[in-house]
Order: sequence, then C-alpha cells, then structure tokens
Amino acid sequence: MGTFIGIIDLGSNTARLVVYYKDEQGSFYEFDNIKRVLRLSNHLQPNGLISETGFQETMDCMRQFKELCDARQVSEVIGVATAAVRQASNGQELLAAIHRNTGIPFRLLTGEEEAYYGYLAVVNSMNVSDGISVDLGGGSTEVTLIRDRKLQESHSFPFGIVTLTKRFLQREIPTDQEIVHLKQFLQQQFSSRPWLFNQKFPLIAMGGTARNLGKIHQQQIHYPMASLHHYLLDDQSVDRIFQWIRKLSLEQRKEVNGLSKDRADVIIAGIAVFQTLMEWIGTKQLIVSNKGLRDGVLYEKVLPLQNISCTDDIIRISTEQFMNRYQVPKGHAQHVKNLACTLFDELKDLQILNLGANERKLLEIAALLHDVGRSINVYEASQHTFYLLSNVLLLGLTHKQRILIAMTASYKNNKQLQQQQSRYAGIVDKSDKEMVEKLGHLVLLARILDRSMSQQIRSIRLLEKKKNIVIECTSIKENLLEYALLEDILKRVSKVFTRSFSFVVKTPTATFTNS
Amino acid sequence: MGTFIGIIDLGSNTARLVVYYKDEQGSFYEFDNIKRVLRLSNHLQPNGLISETGFQETMDCMRQFKELCDARQVSEVIGVATAAVRQASNGQELLAAIHRNTGIPFRLLTGEEEAYYGYLAVVNSMNVSDGISVDLGGGSTEVTLIRDRKLQESHSFPFGIVTLTKRFLQREIPTDQEIVHLKQFLQQQFSSRPWLFNQKFPLIAMGGTARNLGKIHQQQIHYPMASLHHYLLDDQSVDRIFQWIRKLSLEQRKEVNGLSKDRADVIIAGIAVFQTLMEWIGTKQLIVSNKGLRDGVLYEKVLPLQNISCTDDIIRISTEQFMNRYQVPKGHAQHVKNLACTLFDELKDLQILNLGANERKLLEIAALLHDVGRSINVYEASQHTFYLLSNVLLLGLTHKQRILIAMTASYKNNKQLQQQQSRYAGIVDKSDKEMVEKLGHLVLLARILDRSMSQQIRSIRLLEKKKNIVIECTSIKENLLEYALLEDILKRVSKVFTRSFSFVVKTPTATFTNS
Repeated sequence: MGTFIGIIDLGSNTARLVVYYKDEQGSFYEFDNIKRVLRLSNHLQPNGLISETGFQETMDCMRQFKELCDARQVSEVIGVATAAVRQASNGQELLAAIHRNTGIPFRLLTGEEEAYYGYLAVVNSMNVSDGISVDLGGGSTEVTLIRDRKLQESHSFPFGIVTLTKRFLQREIPTDQEIVHLKQFLQQQFSSRPWLFNQKFPLIAMGGTARNLGKIHQQQIHYPMASLHHYLLDDQSVDRIFQWIRKLSLEQRKEVNGLSKDRADVIIAGIAVFQTLMEWIGTKQLIVSNKGLRDGVLYEKVLPLQNISCTDDIIRISTEQFMNRYQVPKGHAQHVKNLACTLFDELKDLQILNLGANERKLLEIAALLHDVGRSINVYEASQHTFYLLSNVLLLGLTHKQRILIAMTASYKNNKQLQQQQSRYAGIVDKSDKEMVEKLGHLVLLARILDRSMSQQIRSIRLLEKKKNIVIECTSIKENLLEYALLEDILKRVSKVFTRSFSFVVKTPTATFTNS
Repeated sequence: MGTFIGIIDLGSNTARLVVYYKDEQGSFYEFDNIKRVLRLSNHLQPNGLISETGFQETMDCMRQFKELCDARQVSEVIGVATAAVRQASNGQELLAAIHRNTGIPFRLLTGEEEAYYGYLAVVNSMNVSDGISVDLGGGSTEVTLIRDRKLQESHSFPFGIVTLTKRFLQREIPTDQEIVHLKQFLQQQFSSRPWLFNQKFPLIAMGGTARNLGKIHQQQIHYPMASLHHYLLDDQSVDRIFQWIRKLSLEQRKEVNGLSKDRADVIIAGIAVFQTLMEWIGTKQLIVSNKGLRDGVLYEKVLPLQNISCTDDIIRISTEQFMNRYQVPKGHAQHVKNLACTLFDELKDLQILNLGANERKLLEIAALLHDVGRSINVYEASQHTFYLLSNVLLLGLTHKQRILIAMTASYKNNKQLQQQQSRYAGIVDKSDKEMVEKLGHLVLLARILDRSMSQQIRSIRLLEKKKNIVIECTSIKENLLEYALLEDILKRVSKVFTRSFSFVVKTPTATFTNS
C-alpha cells in the first residue's frame, strides 16, 4: 500500500487541492484534483485587509479540502499561499486560523520562492534547455530565465489576471483604449527586467490561463491528443485567439470550447499578458506547461537528493515511474530493451538499418513499455498499450515523440499502424510509418526472444551469410518456447528488412541451426 | 499481493496456457495467454498410439509452459487433457510423463466433463437462459442443452475440426461432393441426440473456430467494439462466410482478416459444423462465447460455494470484480449509486423521468463504475472511464448494454456523447442519446452530492414546489464542499429535465435554502 499526500495552493484567484499517490516504489502520481475559484484578490480591501467574507470563505474551503483529504486517507497535507495572502496585512492571521482549524501548516511564499517552484516544475518535466517561464496567477506573475536548464534570473510582478482585469478592463468588452493601456502597463513592468527583452527564448507558460489557451487552440484545430503538457502555440495563434476573444461578450466567452466558465471574466487580461510578453521577448513559441507551483513544491519534497541535470534523466525517471504504475515486470522489460537495442545496433552495423540516435532512444522506451497495456486487459493488450502511451504523460518528451513511442511499443501490423497514423495525422505523418514499422518489428522480435519471460536466451549476435542474416542465440537449453515461436516472426522481419532472417542456437555444448 | 494460477488445456488441435491473477479480494482475471498448435490429433496413429514425435513435442511444450509459469511466479498449475489424449491408448502414459517432468498434475477429462465445463463457462459469463452450447475442438465436439440456465442434456461427439478435415476435406478447396458428405455425416451424428433437432434455441459457440468466425464477421462489417464475448451472428452471415471461405485457396484463407493463419487449413470444417448445427437446431442466432473449457475449470475451482442462479448475480459479481480491479473506493461508489437511484426513483414518481427497470439497472452499474478511469489517469478520467467500460468485459451484459453503461458512467457533455455515439453507431443509435443524457446527469449530480467522498450528505429527498424541484439534503454540517459545487450542476440538470432544480440543506438543527 502506498501513501497519499495533499498539496493545497491557496492562490489569488483559485484555491486548489491536489492529492498525490505515492506508490511502494516511491513514484508519485496525481490522484485527485479539485479547485474552487475564491477570488481572494477581490476580497483584498483598500485598507489592506482580507474582508471578513473572504476570510470566512477561505476558512470554509480549507476545511472542506481537509475533509476530502481525510476521506482520501491523505497522511500529509502541505499548504502554500501566494500573492493575495502575501499582500494582505492580515494574511499571516488567516494562515494561523486555518492551521488552528484544520491542522494544515501553510507556508506563505515570497515572490522569489513562487518563481523558483515554477522553474523546478518546468525543468523536472520538460525537454527544454533555454526558456523564459511565466507563472500567471490571480494576483502575481512570476517569470524566470532558464539557461542550460539552470535558473539564471527570476522575478515576481505584483499583478495577475484578477487585479489586471479589475484595474484595466472594466467594461465587459474592453475598448481598444483599455487594451492599449493594459499593454502599455505590462510593457513598462517588463522593462524593469532587462533580461526579458528580446531574449528570443520560448515562453513556457504555467497556470490556468495557459491551460485554457492551450485547450482553446486544441479545440479549434481538432487536435487529436488529449494532452496539454508541452503543447506548442505560435505567436500568430496566440494573437488570433486574443483578437477573437477580446471582442466577445461575457456570455459568448462562457461558450468558448476549452475555456472554463469561471475564467471567462479574466481570460482577456490573461491572454494579453502572454501576448505582450511574447512580443517583448521576441519569441514565436509558447509552450504550455501543465506542471506548476504545486508540482515544484512536490518535486522539492520528493526529489531532494536527485540532481536532475538533463532531459535524459527526466525521461528515464518518468519511464521507470510508468513501469511501476502499470506493473511492468522489470527483468523481462530490460531484457527486451537490450535485445531490441542489440538488433538495432547490429543491423545498423550491417547497413540494413539506417536510423540514428533519436530513433534508438524511442526504441529503448518503446521496448521497456511494450506491454503496459496488459495492466488494462490481456485481451487487445496492444491496443491498450497504444492507448496508455498516447494518453498518459511521459515527461520530457514532445507530443510527437510520445505518439511514435506508442506506435512502436504497440506495433502489431500495418493495418493498425495505418489507423493510428491517420488518427494522429496532425502529429505524425505518413513518412514516419516506415520508421515505426521497422522499430516495431524489432520490438516484436525482441519480445518473442524473451517470450518465456525468463531471459533464457541470454544474448544474441547477428551474422551475415551471403546476404542472409542469421541470429545466433545463446542459451543453455536448445528447446525453448522462444525457438518454437521464432519462425513466424522471422518471416515477417525478413519481409520488412528485405533480407532473409534465420536463427541458430548456441549452447555451451553445441550449435543447432534452423532451416 | 495476489497470486497467480495457471490452467493448461491440452487439446487435440491446440495446447494453451492461461495464467490468471487472483487479487487480494479474490477476484480473478486473465493475465497471460499463450497457445501452440500441436495438432495432437494428427499424431494419433492407426495403432491407437500417439507417435513418438507427438509425444516429444507435447512434452517440450508442457515444459516450456511450465517455464513461463515459473517466470510468472504461478503458484499452482492445473492441467486438463481432452479428446486426442482420451482416444490414445498411451494417453495416460503421456500425462504421467508430463507430471514426472514438470510436476504439473493433468486430469484426463471425459466427454461429459468437457461438456459440463463448457456449460459452466456459459452460464457464469452470459445473459442467456436457454440455449444449445457447442464447444468445437480439434478431436471432439461437446454440445449441451441449457434450459432456464440449467444443464438438461449433454453429449460429446468424437469428431473435431482436425479429424473432420482429415477425413472429409482432403482437397485444398473442397469439392461440392466433399462438403455434402461432411454435412451428411454431421447430420447423421446430430440425429443421435433427438434433443438437438429443431430446438430453436440460440447456438452458443465456444472454441477457436467460433472466435475466428466472430472476428471475420466483425472485420467485414467494421464492428466498432473490440469484444468477442457475446457477439451475435445470424444464420445468413454464417452461411455467407462459409460459402465464401470454402471457395478460397489455403493461401487466400491465410490472408482473411480475423482468421488465424494456423487455423486456415481447418476453418472450413469448423464453420461447416456450426452452419449444419444451426440448420439442425433451426436457429437463426449464433452467439460467440470467448469463455470455454478452461474458464469452466477455473469457475469450478473458484466458485465452489457460489450458486449463481441468475444473470443479475453474474452482473453483480462482475461489477464488484471491476471495482476491485480498478481500485474504486467502495463506500463512495455505493453512496453515489444510492443517491443516483433515489434521484431516478423520485423523478419517476414525480413523472419527470419516464424510464423503466432496465434503464435503472444500467444507471446502477454506471454509478458504481463512474470513476474507474481514474485508475488510468486523473486527467481526462471521464475519457478513460469510457475506454475501460467499452473495452474490458463486464460479464452478463450485451454489447449494447456495455456501451450504454460506458456512455452513462463517463457522461460529461453532449459533445462527447455525440462523438461516442457516432463511433459506436452500429451498436447504439441516436435515439439512445436522450436516455443516456438523462442518466448521465443523474450520475454527475450524485457524484457532486458526494464530492468529498465522505458521505456527509446522508440522504436526499425530492420535493415539488410549484413545478420547481427542491432537493432536500440531510447532513450534519451545512457548509460542505458539496453545497459549494451544487449550483453549477443543478443549472445543467434543470436544462435537461426542463424544470428548475434547487436544493435545501436539512441539518439536525435547521434547514437552509439556496437561492
């Protein structure tokens, strides 16, 4: 039995509880996620105090979150509070009252800390070396400069979507004048941090506005993948959505696909921040991050000794978590991976395969995860493998890489590959199919080479004999399940690589040849 | 940690090992499944002995299966052997040798026992009261008469697809004459059991030929569901497939979608048996059963004290297993079910809902399983719930019922419902959508009524006030998470039922009203 841990982010717009499950191997994954839009920033009075109503609503909400934690058997709850509480003169009082009533300890984060957790979330979940991260909240906006995966600069601006809307966009449909004033204000704020200007790095956007922006775009283009993390938008798309949304009435905005109703009133200010910041940075790329503050807080807690210095580490750790989560037998999976990579390397040496290091990386992950679908059901396990790999986040990879891995890991035949490709046509194109077909056959062959799951075929070696390829398999016994099943798959492999494949068995005492 | 159990079915055509996982709650599900086509019937010599090659190949295969069992940490392996071993004079010797070499105890089943296990498989997995079951093997064919879910008659015919092919269909493409002789032989055999003739009950078909027949038909009509169990074919379809396949060469048959290559040589005899038997019984319906002998053996072992007398029991047990398998919190699920059923019943009383007992049954299951998708991932959990419920077998239900339950349990909005319906258009039609929309809203509402998962709203009651519906919720506290979230969902419910819905809170001390 694993344990549950809860993290509450008491933000200026939204209060959110995320319950994480920690399994026996120490892997974490999200288990429950609930938010309430408290708009704490709006309860901040001119006198600097959070109003009594705001105080009470927050207390109620925290108690309710605690009740859900109790029902979920959460053993530890960590609370963090941000801008609205930071700006309120009775903020500490509120946190103390919550602690008294619920037992949940809350940390009031500084703007710098908030920015740091956003940075942590990004580098631990994404394949980016350089970027500007922005965490757009209700009452503050944190930006960092990431270079070579290191935090170079950070800053917390004291404005967010709730406060900007209140100050600049008072009409339901903002006037041109209002928009201009808002953008001028933002540019002036950004100009206080010279490292932002014309930096050209992609903008990595966190928070509810970023997620909504990504969802709106995905709906518009009928994006086939149900995944937001690492979703890319270009500057023109951001601008087009901004120019469209700013002309809609509140009721119309509430009907926009992908936009949460409870965000419809503050979305214009939100997108304006991204759009203005992209112009300021001089970038054409916005990357949505589904990970944010709360994940940074979690990573700090659970990865205290791990030094994740490169993307390969993230992919490796995430693949291991995937294996734990979907109960992959590790010895078998590792062996299949090794066999598949040996096939890849030796076919390359023999100039039968013409693929590079990137494809080999995809093959490695696909071989390790080839059988995750079994955790859903043994019937149609290949289909389930594709479903899991195309739907459940593997960190550190692009969407395209994830789909290619899903196709390779689940490869069964060309008909299925064709269906998968046409379903994800916006992400992988027809030219990818040939590569997947080859990698897929290597996984199929490697699986058969350890079908008894007991690593009886210890190693393989490829020999070329008059243009024919002979797989020399080393095992103690010569009469293995593997050998009984090899013939069929070798016929298929021969077709794909247009060479005749056969195998010989090498045992400590003798060598047997098939056909 | 659960345990693993293996069942080996040493048949006359195929040897198959199935590994079942038994979880901590005692639920079983298939975990691995491997077959080898040994064609033991063909190794049966005129002198009544299994040939030395056949003997050796069988021994090797059993040892290989045992090695896979060991790798899978299977704690108990049960072997059963059927016709070929039964008919061989050295059958017992073979089983003794296997036992000596692998430690696996094998039972040699009589024809009656084989028939009985097929019957057990059917009544424990299907919603049928009356039927003729047929388990078509390589060397024997078992039929039973099921009436009112009870075994009335049973018989084992000493022929199967391997022996029939050898005896009657010697040419690659059988002549009309050969087919006529085969059918005459079959009719003559069937006529020895008067209870078969003109019985009119549907034919429930087990074994590889039945599964292949179902798959071929599903491929032809592009059936949207990846599920064979309980798949229906009418007599015309069976006949059409038969007339088509019998004219194909062996190589052409090997390319037929849905037909296993290693079955292409014996498929004609197989389909001939079903087609002739359907004519003989006078039925228009063939129902494919994916459960067979090995499942019967398992059921006998794991359900020894359970008396499953009606379909509702099967559905109940299967739903519970589903809940165990996908880690549904039971208290919450039961409470959501009770709340959804209360809503259903009281809306019916108020004549706002016009649905019957069948729909209520679907609602019950959907409410219990509404959150299974969370076991895949908390993101897009509704989509995953639909995926699991439409792909993983729930016993005792038709395909249509399973899709309706999947739609209801995963109901999110009309757009998603529309997509689901068009994807499964051959199974559910547009007219079903309205019903699902209503049931789906009841599940959504019931889920919110226990969003804190702690059953704080103990009970509800519906009151009608001037055409408006007031949900009276009884709870100790009045300030629950549930009440904070109710308003939104009640707006949606009001739209669907074209009545205004609101709620009041009833606590031991007072009653509070919203809006």
